[in-house]
Amino acid sequence: MINPFTDEYFMKKALQEAEMAFEKGEIPVGAIVVVDHTIIARSHNLTELLNDVTAHAEMQAITAAANFIGGKYLKDCTLYVTLEPCQMCAGALYWSQISKIVFGASDAHRGYEKMGTQLHPKTTVVRGVMADEASDLMKRFFAERRK
Amino acid sequence: MINPFTDEYFMKKALQEAEMAFEKGEIPVGAIVVVDHTIIARSHNLTELLNDVTAHAEMQAITAAANFIGGKYLKDCTLYVTLEPCQMCAGALYWSQISKIVFGASDAHRGYEKMGTQLHPKTTVVRGVMADEASDLMKRFFAERRK
Repeated sequence: MINPFTDEYFMKKALQEAEMAFEKGEIPVGAIVVVDHTIIARSHNLTELLNDVTAHAEMQAITAAANFIGGKYLKDCTLYVTLEPCQMCAGALYWSQISKIVFGASDAHRGYEKMGTQLHPKTTVVRGVMADEASDLMKRFFAERRK
Repeated sequence: MINPFTDEYFMKKALQEAEMAFEKGEIPVGAIVVVDHTIIARSHNLTELLNDVTAHAEMQAITAAANFIGGKYLKDCTLYVTLEPCQMCAGALYWSQISKIVFGASDAHRGYEKMGTQLHPKTTVVRGVMADEASDLMKRFFAERRK
């Protein structure tokens, strides 16, 4: 049987969130949280609108997913995020004990892997899913901002 | 002239916040943000009450201070926090470009210094202010929880 619920399927939903951020003039990063093929949280970066450096897509997704679950640990959850998480978001994901993180484009400068942030030992990571699409959106955003 | 606004003066205010967390059954960590001798944000850990791993005292203090200022960068601000920040909170402080961090007790296991989290190059750090008081409060909390 064909499984329609691939990592690409869910990353497309995260990319739609990133596009919503783009339209608001926010650095275009989107995230969703999935449990058992069901999306339980959607979010996109809102740092400019909220004047708040903590309002990254992942942080909002973690809070929203925990609210949905009614508990603070995101066991059996997968976070899909269009850009590699930063130190702050990886640190939050560490506390959440999330089962799986799937990210799109890598962030060579501010990404948690370069910065050496530790994830929870229970967390598995998948990298580079629809990375070109996520990266193109970022490049388009910064190109427009420089105009 | 005597300056009453010492680091100890403000750390006592953060300790009062930590005691409020203690009374709610939260791991007792408190934080305040100060600009020019004025407290612009007060907070304490609320991870249990909010079912949210992101609700550390520092995260709330950053959001509240940015809200007060009307801008997301905490330049000329000092954060006083009773316990050494974790990876997440240090990562948030990195983005905030905060001028100064004063913390009480060190966290040998989960503190950002052990974990290698990077702060912003503009940020200075003062360690160990009223560390015994902060540490005693933590020990008392975990001793009571084990009963």
